[in-house]
Amino acid sequence: MKLYKTLEDLKKVLMPYDVKNKCIGLVPTMGFLHKGHTSLIEKAAKENDMVVVSIFVNPTQFGPNEDYEKYPRDIKRDYELATQAGADIIFTPEVNQMYDHPKTTIQVKELTNKLCGLSRPGHFDGVTTVVAKLFNGVKPHKAYFGQKDAQQLIVIQKMVKDLNYDIEIIGCPIVRESDGLALSSRNVYLSTEERKQATILYKSLITIKDKIVNGERDAKSLKEEITRMIKSQPLAKIDYVALVDVYALENVEQIKDKVLIALAVKFGDTRLIDNIVVEV
Amino acid sequence: MKLYKTLEDLKKVLMPYDVKNKCIGLVPTMGFLHKGHTSLIEKAAKENDMVVVSIFVNPTQFGPNEDYEKYPRDIKRDYELATQAGADIIFTPEVNQMYDHPKTTIQVKELTNKLCGLSRPGHFDGVTTVVAKLFNGVKPHKAYFGQKDAQQLIVIQKMVKDLNYDIEIIGCPIVRESDGLALSSRNVYLSTEERKQATILYKSLITIKDKIVNGERDAKSLKEEITRMIKSQPLAKIDYVALVDVYALENVEQIKDKVLIALAVKFGDTRLIDNIVVEV
Repeated sequence: MKLYKTLEDLKKVLMPYDVKNKCIGLVPTMGFLHKGHTSLIEKAAKENDMVVVSIFVNPTQFGPNEDYEKYPRDIKRDYELATQAGADIIFTPEVNQMYDHPKTTIQVKELTNKLCGLSRPGHFDGVTTVVAKLFNGVKPHKAYFGQKDAQQLIVIQKMVKDLNYDIEIIGCPIVRESDGLALSSRNVYLSTEERKQATILYKSLITIKDKIVNGERDAKSLKEEITRMIKSQPLAKIDYVALVDVYALENVEQIKDKVLIALAVKFGDTRLIDNIVVEV
Repeated sequence: MKLYKTLEDLKKVLMPYDVKNKCIGLVPTMGFLHKGHTSLIEKAAKENDMVVVSIFVNPTQFGPNEDYEKYPRDIKRDYELATQAGADIIFTPEVNQMYDHPKTTIQVKELTNKLCGLSRPGHFDGVTTVVAKLFNGVKPHKAYFGQKDAQQLIVIQKMVKDLNYDIEIIGCPIVRESDGLALSSRNVYLSTEERKQATILYKSLITIKDKIVNGERDAKSLKEEITRMIKSQPLAKIDYVALVDVYALENVEQIKDKVLIALAVKFGDTRLIDNIVVEV
C-alpha cells in the first residue's frame, strides 16, 4: 500500500492501470475511518483491481460555524485501517494542493436546497466540487459512498448522470453500533449521556418502518410519531425529520413505492444524521 | 468518418482508443463550420490518433432573448467540412440526449461576471457545463478552442485546472476574412452594409496594437481611441471595449506584460466579438 500527497504523483502510479483498462475503485473519505468506511473499502477491494482511498477533510463543505478545525483526524490509524481493509493507494492531499485560488463550483440544484442543505448552505456544492476533482484526478470506474449520507449519495448520482461521468456510483449500507447508532466520525464528540440518548434516532426509524410495514401510509402522522419519540430525549434538538421520495427528495403525503425517512438531530453541538429507506 | 448521435454509441467506439492509450483530440463546436473551426480540426488531426468533433447548438448557453432558434445550422455541409479537415468521428447529440431534467451546473466565478458575461448572464455556466459533459463523455487527451472566444478559453482553462481535468487545452489563432473580419457563424446575419462597417473591429484592434508597440501604455487613452474608431461607423453599437489582463480579466491601467484587448459590438441584432493579445 502506498501513500501519495499530490495528484501528479497519483497520476503517475494510476497511469498503467488506466492504460491496461484495469478497474479502479475510489472510496472518497474525510478520514478518521470507522467500520462504515472500511466496509466501503472492503467492497471496493472485492470489485476492483485497484482501490484508491482518498482522505481529505474538505474545507469547502464546512460552513463558517461548523467543525472543520476540530473535525477528528488520525492519519496513522487511517493508514492501518485502510490497508487492512484492502486499499492499494491512499491519497492524502494538502488543502493547498487541492485548492489553488479556486473559482469553479459544481452545483446540483433543487436536490441541495432541502434537508441537510437547508441548515448547511453551500455544503453540497463543496461536496460535488471536491468529488468531481477526485473523479477527474483518479478516473475511477466505480466509486463508493455510504447510504448514511443519503442526500449526498442522491446528489452525487445526479451529478454523475448530468455530467456524463462514466463512473458507477455504489451506495453501501449504513453500519451501526450494536445499539443501532449509525457509525460517524462525529460520534466521538458525544458525551456519555448524549451518546445514550442518541440511540433514539435508529429506534424511531425502526418504529416508523414497522408502522409502514403494518400498513400506515399517512406521512404526517408518521412524522409526528418520529418527532414525538425523538423529543422524548431531553438532549435531542431536531434539525429536521422528513419523509421524501428518493429521486427529487420532495416531501410525500402518502407512503408509496419507496420512501426515504431522513433526520438530522443535534445533541449538544454535535449534529447527527440517520435515515432508512422503506419500500412498500 | 462516422457519425454518432448518442453517448452510448460514442463510448463504444472510443473504448478501444481509451484502452490502448491512443491520443484522442476533441473539437467542441456548435456547427455551421467555417475556416476557424476547420483550422482547429486540422490541428487536432495532426496532434492526435483520433479526432472527435462535436456539433451541438447548446441551448443552455443562449439567453432567453438570444438567437438559439435562428442560430445557423447545416449538418450536411458540416459533415463534409469536418471530414475534409480530418475528423474521425462527428458527435451530434439531440438536446434531450444531452439534457435529461438537468440540475447540475458548473460555474467559474469572477471570470464569468465580466466582459461577455455582463451582457450574457448564465452564458458561461452553459458553456462550462456542456464542455464538462463532453469531456466526461469523450475523455479526450487534448481539446481545441478558438482564441476568438478569448474569455471562453480562459474560463475553460480555469475550470480544467480547478477540477483536475487531465486534458490539455489548446487555444488556436483567430481565422479572419481577407479584410480582417474574424470568422463567425453569426457573420451570415450581417447585411451588406453591416458587413462592410464591421471591418472596423479588426482595424481598431490593429491600430491599438501598433500604438502599444510604439510605446503607448495608458489603457484609458487606448480605450478612448478604439471606442472613437468604432463609433465612426454609424451602424456599430458598442457592448464593451476592454483592456484586461489574461488571467483574472481585470481592467488594466498601464499596459505591461500581456494585455487582452477585447470587444463586443452589435451591428443591428448581430453581436460580434473580436480580440487581440499584445505582449510588451
